[in-house]
Amino acid sequence: MQLLQTLCRIPAPSGEEAALTRFILDYVRQHGPAWRQPPLVVHDEARFQDCVLLVFGQPRTAVFAHLDSIGFTVRYGRELVPIGGPETETGYRLVGCDSQGDIACTLTVNEETEALGYEFSRDIERGTSLTFACEFRETETTVQSCYLDNRLGVWNALRLAETLEHGIIAFSCWEEHGGGSVPYLARYIYDTYGVRQALISDITWVTEGVQLGAGCVISLRDSLIPRRGYVERIRRIAEASGVPHQLEVEGEGGSDAKDLQRSDMPWDWCFVGAPEDGVHSPNELIDKHDIASMLQLYQVLLREL
Amino acid sequence: MQLLQTLCRIPAPSGEEAALTRFILDYVRQHGPAWRQPPLVVHDEARFQDCVLLVFGQPRTAVFAHLDSIGFTVRYGRELVPIGGPETETGYRLVGCDSQGDIACTLTVNEETEALGYEFSRDIERGTSLTFACEFRETETTVQSCYLDNRLGVWNALRLAETLEHGIIAFSCWEEHGGGSVPYLARYIYDTYGVRQALISDITWVTEGVQLGAGCVISLRDSLIPRRGYVERIRRIAEASGVPHQLEVEGEGGSDAKDLQRSDMPWDWCFVGAPEDGVHSPNELIDKHDIASMLQLYQVLLREL
Amino acid sequence: MQLLQTLCRIPAPSGEEAALTRFILDYVRQHGPAWRQPPLVVHDEARFQDCVLLVFGQPRTAVFAHLDSIGFTVRYGRELVPIGGPETETGYRLVGCDSQGDIACTLTVNEETEALGYEFSRDIERGTSLTFACEFRETETTVQSCYLDNRLGVWNALRLAETLEHGIIAFSCWEEHGGGSVPYLARYIYDTYGVRQALISDITWVTEGVQLGAGCVISLRDSLIPRRGYVERIRRIAEASGVPHQLEVEGEGGSDAKDLQRSDMPWDWCFVGAPEDGVHSPNELIDKHDIASMLQLYQVLLREL
Repeated sequence: MQLLQTLCRIPAPSGEEAALTRFILDYVRQHGPAWRQPPLVVHDEARFQDCVLLVFGQPRTAVFAHLDSIGFTVRYGRELVPIGGPETETGYRLVGCDSQGDIACTLTVNEETEALGYEFSRDIERGTSLTFACEFRETETTVQSCYLDNRLGVWNALRLAETLEHGIIAFSCWEEHGGGSVPYLARYIYDTYGVRQALISDITWVTEGVQLGAGCVISLRDSLIPRRGYVERIRRIAEASGVPHQLEVEGEGGSDAKDLQRSDMPWDWCFVGAPEDGVHSPNELIDKHDIASMLQLYQVLLREL
Repeated sequence: MQLLQTLCRIPAPSGEEAALTRFILDYVRQHGPAWRQPPLVVHDEARFQDCVLLVFGQPRTAVFAHLDSIGFTVRYGRELVPIGGPETETGYRLVGCDSQGDIACTLTVNEETEALGYEFSRDIERGTSLTFACEFRETETTVQSCYLDNRLGVWNALRLAETLEHGIIAFSCWEEHGGGSVPYLARYIYDTYGVRQALISDITWVTEGVQLGAGCVISLRDSLIPRRGYVERIRRIAEASGVPHQLEVEGEGGSDAKDLQRSDMPWDWCFVGAPEDGVHSPNELIDKHDIASMLQLYQVLLREL
Repeated sequence: MQLLQTLCRIPAPSGEEAALTRFILDYVRQHGPAWRQPPLVVHDEARFQDCVLLVFGQPRTAVFAHLDSIGFTVRYGRELVPIGGPETETGYRLVGCDSQGDIACTLTVNEETEALGYEFSRDIERGTSLTFACEFRETETTVQSCYLDNRLGVWNALRLAETLEHGIIAFSCWEEHGGGSVPYLARYIYDTYGVRQALISDITWVTEGVQLGAGCVISLRDSLIPRRGYVERIRRIAEASGVPHQLEVEGEGGSDAKDLQRSDMPWDWCFVGAPEDGVHSPNELIDKHDIASMLQLYQVLLREL
């Protein structure tokens, strides 16, 4: 879990993913040559901004894992505005940095107006991004930290990469704040490789129907509805594989799949990822069994889809 | 009205249109050769998923008719989540099928929480789609059924096809649940045929300004606003034709036109369709005069636009 | 300010921009030849509807200025539905015209239901567009009128054009009502010129952090978050230039940038424009200092980006 911890500690709120992008590029440069099939690394700021693509063999399926996280932007006075949809509670520890130096402050939530603010020894410069301070906790059976959503999806993609023969891994930006990079990633992948099958490597919620430890989640729908025929194929592969998994049905929530569904290409997509408790808080909790089954399921799916 | 009744009885909620797609393909294979101008049938799952295009002669205008309907997905326990925006009332009869067999159950709506559920002799499998049981009713002057929205728009397109010389008919998916197929259909039509004029063959609402029996509706706007110049051309053609019609002005609602408006192509579009009472309920009601004027208006518009 | 006044007086609600388009084309035809670098004028209704592009030299950056404004559409009886998000107050003067002639009426707002209507000597035809009556007011230090949003953005672009050597100016449609033209403008610009840097020439709000007279606003974010690296470059150029400016951080609001962010091209974008009081009312107020610094900042940015 050392890699996961490292990923969780790198601040990368939506729009400001560049530090995590650099980490991914370094990591692939260092470890990629030893992978079963060293990938083609596609990264060109003029064409892909802060995104990265890894292309393995003759790809049929693309895995999308978003780099960015939720967070906060400093507004005026001591106000904050959210980046994406963070859980907010007075006392949450936030970190960042502006031209005056490093920042370690605490979140405040006005009980009446629900307005967000911060407490700190000085004013923070307008426009500064703040993210949760990372307190990574590991037990025999669980990991807990901020930003498991979606550093675990990124971790899953990097571990999948070790043994992947054919496929594409796409590291995207802005997912937590309305998207905006998947459209051009999908365009490039579709035009260059003819690939139109997608898996969304991301984290979902524990609910009355989805439990911690019961296996990786295959989502049959969230706020969007994927094409039934594709999802059925994935279910059959998962069942045949024997890898523990559970089925999700939601009316809300979304993922990078939104940008695939809206694109002018015929992408099929399905969300496949571990569930967590404490979504978008500093205390996101995931069961290690679900991490294991997520990676196993991706290994099977990338072979058989 | 036999064809319309058949169309209304085929379950095809958003994301699960495949059965209706097969019906359309069979119907065109059977009847198309006898049409005035047998169309080129474009259907390729890899490029168009469950959509179908019919291309007639040298097209200048495309007619979009969505195949899908609203419905429900079985969640956990006996919960349902909506597909699109169905009207909900305790007692509505729902049908579907899962691996245990056919389902005929009834909708329940919790009076306090408005939570949706079902009553049935057994639990239904997670992720199963349910649609309204079709009770097709016809009088001298009206038809009534679930899913006239948009099986009547599909019917109108298939009847228009009989005499169409130049034009494209596009059967789309997912319209009731956020769209997602019109972008690539529009892309293909625009790139292949240079067509950028659209008519939306769909059903609208009876309101204080739009009555049953007063003719097919030309919508001047809904939640989106079409380009005035194009709508004015349609109004002039309609007026000159003498076909009964009425003008709609709404601030809400949408159609497949949303995906045209957002596309990176300069599509002009206008919604033209019959009005109905009981929208998105099992009891959608349409006046036969409006059906007749809808078909007549499409025949004129496809000739003159 | 004669040009600005003329621009404010031309009705051009979303979807009905054609009159302003004609004015822009005439203006460029008349004045363009005397500009430092006469631009290539791109206007072709079949490809760009009512939009206009001006291409100067070897462009690296595109300036987007929307032509359209908010307004109202006549519904049934004496009802109105809004175009975009107008400020509404009983008594606001509205103008328009239908087949019976010119219209000068007043807005009514039902105190209980907030329903919009009009008072006039006769019924107005269904679907007629109404806009605020323009009362242009100028002092030594301010201008006040309806539709400074975005006629001042258009004015800024036309004044910028006088000395521009390299760049693109794009006049867009529908911005106030959900967009729909920037996708194809951006597609054409990106495909033809490889340009993917954008500035949004539009008007923002006076808030507790943004004051009248304190200089042109560089927005660090609104409801969307631009890529940090691009915005930082703009901030550094602005600081080095010495042109007065202020930084905005909002959690709401949007602009033509939405369509760039969602596009399948890697556009970088930043909103740069003067702030106003009385947004979307007949009494929008802007400080002349902010107008001057807006134009100066655009001149610097188009040179240095």
